Amino acid sequence: MVRQKILILNGPNLNLLGTREPEIYGHQTFEQYLEVLKDKFGKELELEYFQSNSEGAMISKLHEVGFSYDGILLNAGGYTHTSIALADAVSAISTPVIEVHISNVHARESFRAHSYLSPKCKGSIIGFGLRSYDLGLYSFI
Amino acid sequence: MVRQKILILNGPNLNLLGTREPEIYGHQTFEQYLEVLKDKFGKELELEYFQSNSEGAMISKLHEVGFSYDGILLNAGGYTHTSIALADAVSAISTPVIEVHISNVHARESFRAHSYLSPKCKGSIIGFGLRSYDLGLYSFI
Amino acid sequence: MVRQKILILNGPNLNLLGTREPEIYGHQTFEQYLEVLKDKFGKELELEYFQSNSEGAMISKLHEVGFSYDGILLNAGGYTHTSIALADAVSAISTPVIEVHISNVHARESFRAHSYLSPKCKGSIIGFGLRSYDLGLYSFI
Amino acid sequence: MVRQKILILNGPNLNLLGTREPEIYGHQTFEQYLEVLKDKFGKELELEYFQSNSEGAMISKLHEVGFSYDGILLNAGGYTHTSIALADAVSAISTPVIEVHISNVHARESFRAHSYLSPKCKGSIIGFGLRSYDLGLYSFI
Amino acid sequence: MVRQKILILNGPNLNLLGTREPEIYGHQTFEQYLEVLKDKFGKELELEYFQSNSEGAMISKLHEVGFSYDGILLNAGGYTHTSIALADAVSAISTPVIEVHISNVHARESFRAHSYLSPKCKGSIIGFGLRSYDLGLYSFI
Amino acid sequence: MVRQKILILNGPNLNLLGTREPEIYGHQTFEQYLEVLKDKFGKELELEYFQSNSEGAMISKLHEVGFSYDGILLNAGGYTHTSIALADAVSAISTPVIEVHISNVHARESFRAHSYLSPKCKGSIIGFGLRSYDLGLYSFI
Amino acid sequence: MVRQKILILNGPNLNLLGTREPEIYGHQTFEQYLEVLKDKFGKELELEYFQSNSEGAMISKLHEVGFSYDGILLNAGGYTHTSIALADAVSAISTPVIEVHISNVHARESFRAHSYLSPKCKGSIIGFGLRSYDLGLYSFI
Amino acid sequence: MVRQKILILNGPNLNLLGTREPEIYGHQTFEQYLEVLKDKFGKELELEYFQSNSEGAMISKLHEVGFSYDGILLNAGGYTHTSIALADAVSAISTPVIEVHISNVHARESFRAHSYLSPKCKGSIIGFGLRSYDLGLYSFI
Amino acid sequence: MVRQKILILNGPNLNLLGTREPEIYGHQTFEQYLEVLKDKFGKELELEYFQSNSEGAMISKLHEVGFSYDGILLNAGGYTHTSIALADAVSAISTPVIEVHISNVHARESFRAHSYLSPKCKGSIIGFGLRSYDLGLYSFI
Amino acid sequence: MVRQKILILNGPNLNLLGTREPEIYGHQTFEQYLEVLKDKFGKELELEYFQSNSEGAMISKLHEVGFSYDGILLNAGGYTHTSIALADAVSAISTPVIEVHISNVHARESFRAHSYLSPKCKGSIIGFGLRSYDLGLYSFI
Amino acid sequence: MVRQKILILNGPNLNLLGTREPEIYGHQTFEQYLEVLKDKFGKELELEYFQSNSEGAMISKLHEVGFSYDGILLNAGGYTHTSIALADAVSAISTPVIEVHISNVHARESFRAHSYLSPKCKGSIIGFGLRSYDLGLYSFI
Amino acid sequence: MVRQKILILNGPNLNLLGTREPEIYGHQTFEQYLEVLKDKFGKELELEYFQSNSEGAMISKLHEVGFSYDGILLNAGGYTHTSIALADAVSAISTPVIEVHISNVHARESFRAHSYLSPKCKGSIIGFGLRSYDLGLYSFI
Repeated sequence: MVRQKILILNGPNLNLLGTREPEIYGHQTFEQYLEVLKDKFGKELELEYFQSNSEGAMISKLHEVGFSYDGILLNAGGYTHTSIALADAVSAISTPVIEVHISNVHARESFRAHSYLSPKCKGSIIGFGLRSYDLGLYSFI
Repeated sequence: MVRQKILILNGPNLNLLGTREPEIYGHQTFEQYLEVLKDKFGKELELEYFQSNSEGAMISKLHEVGFSYDGILLNAGGYTHTSIALADAVSAISTPVIEVHISNVHARESFRAHSYLSPKCKGSIIGFGLRSYDLGLYSFI
Repeated sequence: MVRQKILILNGPNLNLLGTREPEIYGHQTFEQYLEVLKDKFGKELELEYFQSNSEGAMISKLHEVGFSYDGILLNAGGYTHTSIALADAVSAISTPVIEVHISNVHARESFRAHSYLSPKCKGSIIGFGLRSYDLGLYSFI
Repeated sequence: MVRQKILILNGPNLNLLGTREPEIYGHQTFEQYLEVLKDKFGKELELEYFQSNSEGAMISKLHEVGFSYDGILLNAGGYTHTSIALADAVSAISTPVIEVHISNVHARESFRAHSYLSPKCKGSIIGFGLRSYDLGLYSFI
Repeated sequence: MVRQKILILNGPNLNLLGTREPEIYGHQTFEQYLEVLKDKFGKELELEYFQSNSEGAMISKLHEVGFSYDGILLNAGGYTHTSIALADAVSAISTPVIEVHISNVHARESFRAHSYLSPKCKGSIIGFGLRSYDLGLYSFI
Repeated sequence: MVRQKILILNGPNLNLLGTREPEIYGHQTFEQYLEVLKDKFGKELELEYFQSNSEGAMISKLHEVGFSYDGILLNAGGYTHTSIALADAVSAISTPVIEVHISNVHARESFRAHSYLSPKCKGSIIGFGLRSYDLGLYSFI
Repeated sequence: MVRQKILILNGPNLNLLGTREPEIYGHQTFEQYLEVLKDKFGKELELEYFQSNSEGAMISKLHEVGFSYDGILLNAGGYTHTSIALADAVSAISTPVIEVHISNVHARESFRAHSYLSPKCKGSIIGFGLRSYDLGLYSFI
Repeated sequence: MVRQKILILNGPNLNLLGTREPEIYGHQTFEQYLEVLKDKFGKELELEYFQSNSEGAMISKLHEVGFSYDGILLNAGGYTHTSIALADAVSAISTPVIEVHISNVHARESFRAHSYLSPKCKGSIIGFGLRSYDLGLYSFI
Repeated sequence: MVRQKILILNGPNLNLLGTREPEIYGHQTFEQYLEVLKDKFGKELELEYFQSNSEGAMISKLHEVGFSYDGILLNAGGYTHTSIALADAVSAISTPVIEVHISNVHARESFRAHSYLSPKCKGSIIGFGLRSYDLGLYSFI
Repeated sequence: MVRQKILILNGPNLNLLGTREPEIYGHQTFEQYLEVLKDKFGKELELEYFQSNSEGAMISKLHEVGFSYDGILLNAGGYTHTSIALADAVSAISTPVIEVHISNVHARESFRAHSYLSPKCKGSIIGFGLRSYDLGLYSFI
Repeated sequence: MVRQKILILNGPNLNLLGTREPEIYGHQTFEQYLEVLKDKFGKELELEYFQSNSEGAMISKLHEVGFSYDGILLNAGGYTHTSIALADAVSAISTPVIEVHISNVHARESFRAHSYLSPKCKGSIIGFGLRSYDLGLYSFI
Repeated sequence: MVRQKILILNGPNLNLLGTREPEIYGHQTFEQYLEVLKDKFGKELELEYFQSNSEGAMISKLHEVGFSYDGILLNAGGYTHTSIALADAVSAISTPVIEVHISNVHARESFRAHSYLSPKCKGSIIGFGLRSYDLGLYSFI
């Protein structure tokens, strides 16, 4: 059986996971958690990981994989609430995109309640900590 | 091993699933899908199902199970966007509540973009069709 | 000739018609007026009447008749302006629904100017006193 | 028995009925439909018809008949949502005015949801196609 | 001397008083506090108590007593901020209604700052804990 | 001494003065009052009067006199609050324009509180009944 | 037993009570009513009264008593809706403050619906006429 | 013939007239202009002048003269746009108040477009420079 | 080769071009510029010119040519921002309409930033002075 | 004759032209169309092309050419609606910038109606498909 | 060398510094800190200090020194967000004014984010505790 | 004594200082001014300078120094008003950040009045020209 190719695309500040505001985001780095996910889904999914603080680099990455991969998990961090360009990129590609958030964005500042990405994504998973990625991958199988 | 007790609580109009606006909600009834979920999670989770068109009855059900069950999947339908009383009930109980939506509410009328429930729930899962319930249950194990 | 089956569905506080704020709503009870309507339209229409103060009961009634009756006159009272769930029910059924209001809601408090129901109904008749129901029934023949 | 004198006053673009956007407004011209109405209500009502694309001409027409006629059906088209001057004219005259709309304005662009005329008119009839005029005339008898 | 008849009408989630969010609402159940109030005001007032999670049941209760009792204390909980239908019921009856709130609603989420009930009630008492009911009853003597 | 030439320009519905809503606008026609003004200011001012219900005709009149007359009193009625085109005309001409209103527009519907004309006019006189015109003419001498 | 010291602090225009808009505020002067209150609560409370039309003087009075008195009844009149400085003063002192209003502010102009003071006060009592002060004092015993 | 008593009440910063922002307010002090007005209206009007930077002092002055004088010209400066308390004072007194402004407030910052005073005053005169006071006095004769 | 028929339709105040606010609109009259355009495009396009200050006359002109001409350049002046009726006329006809503006409307008052016409037109050309018409004609060849 | 130097600067996702949402943007790649433009304008204009998904790179490019080139055509894609920094760059340079859009942004999502760039650019050309670039270049000759 | 004369002007509630909400404002009184500042800047600056809870007194103080002093540090406390009159005073005088705030007003209630003073002041210094005054004085040397 | 390490981080368009809009930003380049600052603070502070037009590069720079440096002066230019991602980066690091602006942003376009950075920074210094940096550095010593 051929494994599906999935990109996990993390946006600005998510490189600091495990360091930044641990009371909101926890103490584990994303790289550590990625190993857990690979163990769990390795049979069905081939995972690639990309993180960037640059909106432009994220858009280019979506273009690069968005016509050949089977799925994308996108945590756009702060760009979620401000980037029409990123939302346009999600619309422009054919690979289905799942929006994920670690924290419950609706229980924080009011400006985090609006997402330009949500209407363009297939679905959204919000507030399960790092397990949001786990649920997102589970949705592909 | 003791199974966790989980309530699936569906709100107004969700009794019509399979009949109503199938281009948005699909052709399967919820009862049919419940059997699929019981087969899949039966070892770890004991599922109870309750549907009501009445806001008051939903609140009472949350009170009834909300101090003893291990989790609740809540699809409040149209009350999601209008009911502070239901959100208060979620706050008042101790069982963790997961908000689920079948359709991508962010891609529909703008008044569906706001949820009184989201800030009170542990997490939200939106837009995966009936599989939103599957992901919600998966989050408990 | 087969008569069309029509439900007249009245919402909260409309049971007080004839008692409540007569300077706005008049002195006749709805039951008295129903007899007038039955006399007038009895040849073409078979009228059923249901009133409830409960949003949930109104939704359930819409489900019950909304796939077999020929038409519904809906005066949702205060729920007109607040109930997405009721509007969803109107969308979900196949029977055409006509929104009626006794008073001119646009000449009263500003929060009465918006109706969640209007976009989902076939048409609206507003401000003709009890005759709004008469016009609504006339629209079916 | 003396017949009531009724003016049907149509506003901008309604001269194109039958030509313009038939998927919204249908294929019948208003003049054709007027004959139907005259046949139906000829015994009780004497109908006069006036159409203008000019806000000022509509106001002047309201002044002309508004102290002697028994009723006015007013479909102000796009002026419904922008003309305080027209609403002032409705207030200024003594003949009762009924607002009619062919399409369900609440199911179209959001700027069509507000009417300056509604609070000044006796009642509103919206969304019944050309039959909105029929219902409006029926309200006078 | 004839005692005045007073209804204390509590809305959604107030059945959980003593259990729910005690840091906001305290540890006493309403039934326990009712005994305190009966002791204090027994000579002048005859107290009846009704609680419901259902908007419709609350409206019906207001109709039932609202033309014969001498006063009503109404704590509508979350419906305070969302229910036009309940506010209509307060307008429709002749018994004076006093709005009470246990917590200072103005020091909590911003959506609790608006009440549909306040303009229809005789007065409002907010933020004195369970003593808000005490002050409300005191206002009748 | 050469008298100044002044145009008094009245907008929609002001032809009905003395008839329309006398509790707001009084019982005198404008023509009657014009004689009073001519008597009072005849030595210093040469008065011309023009009324139209048409926005376009008002604009054309402003163009016609707006480069040769010494002043204009403008009561644009309902167009005050909706007409950018009229405000553009005031900007485009060189004759100074004084905005007048008979009633206190700020004490009526909220949509009358905003005027597109005010920022383009030299000054505004509001609420003195027909005497607003008297004050406006007095400002030119 | 030591009596509690309570300041009643009245703001702008309340010196006119009994004169101003009696249909809203009644015919009794506050000084007359103060005697009633002293008779009623003289055993438990020592009442001091201060009225000023000046925001600054009200703030200074709050500072003066706000660290030694047992309670303050504050009717800030029109400053209720506009004064952040007064609300800051309430926050800055340690004596608990009760907000009182004579009329039902929610049934008047919409700008009276917002109070900068409410979130800073212990509680609010609104709409009981002069009896609002009676209820406020009762809350201290 | 008895002369009418008129108070001219100027608010904050108007003591600087002739000094402050002369490109907006001109070079004349108000005291100089007052002599011009006394000369012009001395036969019919007895003028009193009061200026204060204090909102409270302005309110007290309105109380002092507001039940015996024949008229008040009020230029409340910056308080025009922020003071509900001052507007309440205008409502509370029986002497008619005319609102005047030297500059065209509608052609300046947008926050100067709203006046709490306008709906409570008899009329408003805006933008005629110091002559606004002249027109205001003229309105009393 | 048959030339395309194009209407250039100018709205209110554009008859003053060359006179009005030359710092914004320049010193050339439209008639002068029209000759330039005829010289430039005479081989491909047959130009007709119509100007009116009346909204209704503009609508009627659109109806007149809008089913037979090949294109329309529309500069609706101040009606751009206020006329739904004109936008409806653009929708109703079959000839493609290009919106043109002489000045950069986005660099002026904020109310000029919204156009009811833009969504109904094929395209918009803004800010090139009289050359905006040149570009508009160029788009047809 | 020296040719003018023109930069065509395309923003995010415009590298996908011909692939992305062809129902909105067409099937031609920008590179193919650039050849057409070079053929058409080669005698008068020297064209340079730059595309980037990065806001920062676009700003830097504007700096690089913005003091020496003769003109810039800027299609900023999604950054049009969100980037103050890009608008600042347009202000900071001396080369005139023309804003172009392929689709009619006013006929799409409401957030596309606002452009931070428009007030800073010389002019805007919207909705002519790829021909928008053609019109933009034509404006330089 | 002549020392510059600087006024430090503190507004409402700042007399309580060291007492009021020490978790936000610290434990030092302003008078104690003033001595520190005099020691530090005594060679270059001559400091005067004035505090008032009265808006009017603050305005008068600005008038008094605002044409002769070399600078003013203004902490207007709660009036910052509500006083147009104070902002007008800053505009009216010629001495440059620096706005200072002890706490980070942007990290507190949302109504503290707007300042009427900021656009009228030379600069603003926010959030450095009492050191905000130190930085303000440093800006003068 | 060990010197504190301070990063001065400048955002988009600030590389043009001395060139761009000198009437707002002055004629000095930042590099020239940096030498002045190094001379002034060299004993206590070790200054590093970084400028980028890229939001992502700015975020990465904040991460790089934000756990080891003693302070950061951040002038984010246009990103101040639009970048949640940058504000998140400020929150995520432990080094205190001071927001600086050269011009008085509150006296310019209204969209410059809101800063996503302010609530996350220790303090803000606005409007002192290049001296804003001087004051910011002074705050560290």
